Amino acid sequence: MGKAQVLECRECGKEYDPTFRYICEECFGPLEVKYDLASIKVNKETFASRPKSLWRYFELLPLDAKSRIVDLGAGYTPLHRAERLAKKLGLKNLYIKNDTVNPTFSFKDRPASVAVSKALGLGLSAVGSPSTGNLAAATAAHAARAGLPCYIFIPWDIEPTKIVQAAAYGAEIVAIKGTYDDANKLATQAGEIYNIGVVNVNLRPYYVEGSKTLGFEVCEQLGWEAPDHVIVPTGSGALLCAVGRGFDQLEDVGLIRENNVKITSAQPYGCSPIVDAIKKSTDVIDPVEKPNTIAKSLAIGEPGDGIYAARTVMETKGFGENCTDGEIVDAIKLLASTEGIFTEPAGAVTIAVLKKLVAEGKIDADETIVCYVTGNGLKTPEVVSAPTSKPVAIDPKLEVLAQIIRR
Amino acid sequence: MGKAQVLECRECGKEYDPTFRYICEECFGPLEVKYDLASIKVNKETFASRPKSLWRYFELLPLDAKSRIVDLGAGYTPLHRAERLAKKLGLKNLYIKNDTVNPTFSFKDRPASVAVSKALGLGLSAVGSPSTGNLAAATAAHAARAGLPCYIFIPWDIEPTKIVQAAAYGAEIVAIKGTYDDANKLATQAGEIYNIGVVNVNLRPYYVEGSKTLGFEVCEQLGWEAPDHVIVPTGSGALLCAVGRGFDQLEDVGLIRENNVKITSAQPYGCSPIVDAIKKSTDVIDPVEKPNTIAKSLAIGEPGDGIYAARTVMETKGFGENCTDGEIVDAIKLLASTEGIFTEPAGAVTIAVLKKLVAEGKIDADETIVCYVTGNGLKTPEVVSAPTSKPVAIDPKLEVLAQIIRR
Repeated sequence: MGKAQVLECRECGKEYDPTFRYICEECFGPLEVKYDLASIKVNKETFASRPKSLWRYFELLPLDAKSRIVDLGAGYTPLHRAERLAKKLGLKNLYIKNDTVNPTFSFKDRPASVAVSKALGLGLSAVGSPSTGNLAAATAAHAARAGLPCYIFIPWDIEPTKIVQAAAYGAEIVAIKGTYDDANKLATQAGEIYNIGVVNVNLRPYYVEGSKTLGFEVCEQLGWEAPDHVIVPTGSGALLCAVGRGFDQLEDVGLIRENNVKITSAQPYGCSPIVDAIKKSTDVIDPVEKPNTIAKSLAIGEPGDGIYAARTVMETKGFGENCTDGEIVDAIKLLASTEGIFTEPAGAVTIAVLKKLVAEGKIDADETIVCYVTGNGLKTPEVVSAPTSKPVAIDPKLEVLAQIIRR
Repeated sequence: MGKAQVLECRECGKEYDPTFRYICEECFGPLEVKYDLASIKVNKETFASRPKSLWRYFELLPLDAKSRIVDLGAGYTPLHRAERLAKKLGLKNLYIKNDTVNPTFSFKDRPASVAVSKALGLGLSAVGSPSTGNLAAATAAHAARAGLPCYIFIPWDIEPTKIVQAAAYGAEIVAIKGTYDDANKLATQAGEIYNIGVVNVNLRPYYVEGSKTLGFEVCEQLGWEAPDHVIVPTGSGALLCAVGRGFDQLEDVGLIRENNVKITSAQPYGCSPIVDAIKKSTDVIDPVEKPNTIAKSLAIGEPGDGIYAARTVMETKGFGENCTDGEIVDAIKLLASTEGIFTEPAGAVTIAVLKKLVAEGKIDADETIVCYVTGNGLKTPEVVSAPTSKPVAIDPKLEVLAQIIRR
């Protein structure tokens, strides 16, 4: 690294060495990793024989030495050709990028793998995260693999079942008498005082780089062609921006010829500040004070990358669209029953939005479309079935069976 | 197929064409797929460029036409080198075969993929299974992908949360006023009367072939070398026999040079009829009347393949060992916190047994050992944390934090 990569302030452009920093000293803007793409020599053959994880794209990720990689096998998940769902919607070339089968069962393994690897590279002695969901599990698992202590900061009143997975990986659960904001603040302070690598705070410049592999992989899996249209579930906006950056970088290093991907943002009605902005053709984001949706991982009322996500969508001629909780549940069942893929609500938002765009005539039947399905349905079984519901019981007799079997 | 494969009675040896049958007409013994291995021409290069699913071993699986394959991407899961766990146990070459990241999050996707593909090949109009767990989900998902109706037969009093996943894939849940045996019986009758492919009953000869890919893959992932020792979680015994058959077949077709794999059976104390037999150096299996273990998927008191599993273990000079529920929970946490892999109890039984064998001096530190981790911890969150337990909450203050952060 070093020469090929620097940290650059997104606001004022000031450059820094890629060390343990995340805020510009001049203007307090966020730092981002910038690559001297002209100096990076890669071609299709570079990757062909490499292991099937996101680390196959090593040259385009912010790490100096391969020996520091903390790899649980995140990434290079299946790009699933969804023929039955496509037929139902009147489409011809529909794909699901299935991130439910990542090591901790969500796309967050990608940024966590990069951030924890970087923590190791920077010589940090612990990592952590303020998170109550997918990110907590992803960080804890990669910390376990790396042999680093891991601190997960949560509000004390969240359901204990939500942190079972992170706790199993051996993370220290720090339950705060306060809100998620309080947990976030304390995690940030812990990072400063104890040199803890807080993956989505002080390691954020590196962390967000992991998600752009969702753009890389789709192109490689389509034979190094960019799709026509991708639909991205959107919370903070960081994932959407990262996917877009992925396509741009592949074009810049010459791995794809054309990059005319339309990038669509999908959000739930109960929290859709980015989609609302796009619908008004503006990049001014009105915060949502009280997000209210079953897609908890998208319930971010003040999206940190909202303005950049809105711009990416508008510049690429994608759409912003939202959907109700009911439409999300229907979409979970639709995807599972047509394609055998079981997603949590956030992933189903993309399917619900696809359905809407088709109904509104905004999708060409021939388009190559990719829906990002980012997390696993086993994480949220409560949304598809109330725990009290029981199927109707029948007597174990053939004459009763005859009424059930469809012929 | 046809020439390369026949169905053969395991008891009397009578041969049949590989059609929709599973019991010998002469002696009512179970039928198995036999291959004319000498006529199957494969080598390492055959597989090198194929997709990363169990179907890469097409020539060694019981299907005539590739067009019938129902592929959700099951198989070719990571063989994870477990360095931190190995170090903890004083071992040098320990691997985890991580089947938690299969499409429906357990190894059952392997036999389900083969059985549902075969159902399509045989022209059956529906599939089903009596199952309350992993197999129900695996069958339902593959049926969804194939566009076939799927019937899941369950006792009416099981927890509804256990069938959420199968129901999400659109399976018809047939809840029986009766026991699991009643459900099994009705499923078998439904198979006979309505020509339903009941994956683990009338499609069983094909179904069990899917699991032998767990033997194939380990050898390919070790560079076409057999490991020295594998530890297999054992319920019915079918998986253990299939893994053994996988090693044997690779040797027969010349893909591995030597096959001296010791095969060890791991069972929970609350239901260990096969291990009990092995410990007494006999293949006579005493049924367990009331299995009692948190490893529900191994709670099979009358194991159908018990006798064959016991023989395989003794012939290969493996061991039979069991462990308590407490040891299982400890092993779940040990694996998760050292390697970042979160398993359900059945998978942890192998880790607990490995620990015991090491303590008993039965394992050579240099051995190449593979533990099969067959299902996902998200399926059984209740075993690692009582739903009522809450972490201790702290005030969001730095001085309190100072007591928590280890330095």
